[in-house]
Amino acid sequence: MKQNKIEETLQAIGPLDEVAIAAARERQARLTKPAGSLGRLEELSLKLAGIKGQAQPDVSRKAIIVMAGDHGVAAEGVSAYPSEVTAQMVLNFLAGGAAINVFARQVGARVVVADLGVAQDLPPHSQLIQRKLGYGTKNLLLGPAMSREEARQAVEIGIEIVQAEVARGLDLVGTGDMGIGNSTASSAIVASFSGLEVERVTGRGTGVDDAGLKHKVAVIEKALEVNQPDPNDALDVLAKVGGFEIAGLVGLIFGAAAARIPIVIDGFISSAAALVATEWHPPVRDYLIAAHSSVEIGHRIMLERMELNPLLNLNLRLGEGTGAVLAMTMLEAACLVLKEMATFDEAGVSERDEQTLKSELA
Amino acid sequence: MKQNKIEETLQAIGPLDEVAIAAARERQARLTKPAGSLGRLEELSLKLAGIKGQAQPDVSRKAIIVMAGDHGVAAEGVSAYPSEVTAQMVLNFLAGGAAINVFARQVGARVVVADLGVAQDLPPHSQLIQRKLGYGTKNLLLGPAMSREEARQAVEIGIEIVQAEVARGLDLVGTGDMGIGNSTASSAIVASFSGLEVERVTGRGTGVDDAGLKHKVAVIEKALEVNQPDPNDALDVLAKVGGFEIAGLVGLIFGAAAARIPIVIDGFISSAAALVATEWHPPVRDYLIAAHSSVEIGHRIMLERMELNPLLNLNLRLGEGTGAVLAMTMLEAACLVLKEMATFDEAGVSERDEQTLKSELA
Repeated sequence: MKQNKIEETLQAIGPLDEVAIAAARERQARLTKPAGSLGRLEELSLKLAGIKGQAQPDVSRKAIIVMAGDHGVAAEGVSAYPSEVTAQMVLNFLAGGAAINVFARQVGARVVVADLGVAQDLPPHSQLIQRKLGYGTKNLLLGPAMSREEARQAVEIGIEIVQAEVARGLDLVGTGDMGIGNSTASSAIVASFSGLEVERVTGRGTGVDDAGLKHKVAVIEKALEVNQPDPNDALDVLAKVGGFEIAGLVGLIFGAAAARIPIVIDGFISSAAALVATEWHPPVRDYLIAAHSSVEIGHRIMLERMELNPLLNLNLRLGEGTGAVLAMTMLEAACLVLKEMATFDEAGVSERDEQTLKSELA
Repeated sequence: MKQNKIEETLQAIGPLDEVAIAAARERQARLTKPAGSLGRLEELSLKLAGIKGQAQPDVSRKAIIVMAGDHGVAAEGVSAYPSEVTAQMVLNFLAGGAAINVFARQVGARVVVADLGVAQDLPPHSQLIQRKLGYGTKNLLLGPAMSREEARQAVEIGIEIVQAEVARGLDLVGTGDMGIGNSTASSAIVASFSGLEVERVTGRGTGVDDAGLKHKVAVIEKALEVNQPDPNDALDVLAKVGGFEIAGLVGLIFGAAAARIPIVIDGFISSAAALVATEWHPPVRDYLIAAHSSVEIGHRIMLERMELNPLLNLNLRLGEGTGAVLAMTMLEAACLVLKEMATFDEAGVSERDEQTLKSELA
């Protein structure tokens, strides 16, 4: 049955709950504010109601799941940092000293860290999920980063990880990533699906200079030529130019959507995973919320392709799920409006009177 | 001495603390993230350090101060709601049922409500600051909304209100407004200073229709013709086409800046007050943080004139300080980064090595 886990999960992803959406919309209209004046927070409240099937959705139990993995292509000097930083940052996450830990504490989200393919052995830790599929992917410049079967396994592990979190209690999940070289993989993914020139979807990642960027573009162009990923086969793209942690995030997205958990998509790497997920199974798109617009130039193209409109514009380019966890505050605010605001009746506030208004204007 | 309160306050507004900014910048460079990867949060952390004169600024004691007042021009049918809603919403704020209460509870900010000129008598309430200067302003279509002396008094009251909050303990303040008709006053203010055509800076406020918008534009055009506000005299503009609550917010801005408290500017109405404050005394600009970009078309013009870049883009148009309090989360996150993130040394994470990188690329 193992090989059917992905298909079973996809089949479990249903449409949004229109009854809950209608109930939330009706309540929004009765709250003490001009109709529509909370803008995107009102839209979000309806979307969250539809995802969770609750007229007054609750997003209090929050987790950010950070998937980590290394990339063979890092050997080509496509990143400003060496591969060993992946393992070092995982230890930093576990010690609570990274940006994602700071923001997660602020918003009350738990941080879940999973090793899907870090190039070094990591010591056992109560907060670390050890599901290593390899010591980094193969170098995508020379051939596929992963076999089709490896990519599938990583997706399944992502599903299992989020299912375990759902079992612990989960209302809202954010995606996070750590992997030196993974902006190269992500640019290759968006180039594969969009057919756009590599230089239009490739940025500086953690901060390569002009020469580094040129080199990175050349590496990706060559990788696409060598691998010929099929844009009509999302698993083919994922396997050939993706990564273990990106595949894990694809599984996370599928598993969370099947459990009707809203998924907050972080920046460039997470959006590459979301792009694979939506190309693979378009209905999953309804379960996604784009957190922020990254500095990476390919990010906007990903979001447009998925028709997602990011909530924050903070010029972030860190990853780890930092933008996702910051955006959770806005989602929680959207839900609290439905739960806690008074209605016109309750507060004794006069509603807009179209007739009075028209006569005044006459 | 009373008549010198404003001038004394303006003289107390000093430059940003460059030593604290340098210390914060130096620390940002040692934290476990690529340099600059937290984008605007890093810039904000430096600005907050400079305002507060602290290398690791603290914004934990937060307040949103909502100033309320009515507008004589509401009699012209420029709003989708009747004037009585101002008093009703003040009572809603005091009862904790409005959007601002919901968001303030979420971020741990206290809500301070002040009546500077509501058209109805309000019952005494422990949370309400009663400093009523009149039962609404005069109708600016027929002459000045306030006398110069009334406007000055309202500014002084704003200073006193924020000084009392500073005495209670305050690290960060947000501006809020309530007043049916105050988007008309705010459009008149930005039109006065910018010299732009009224229709370019006038929106639908709480939601007038096409005919209502046309009427609102005509009212403002006539008001500017009747009053001839002098764009080189901010107090003249404020008195003639402003409002009691807008003038109170101008005082709040001056008083907070003098006490080195960062001021989060909400949307269109608050930005009109900020515009008066910055035209009056340009150095105050350094103390302002724009929370969000409102749906009101004149808002962008205000922000550009003040060279402020809003943090959130949520299509809000509610006022009350709702956008300001939502943005406080981002400011708090910016400060927590400086306080809580590990440095490369502490976490044993490899720093970017320019030499290694260059040789790899060679």
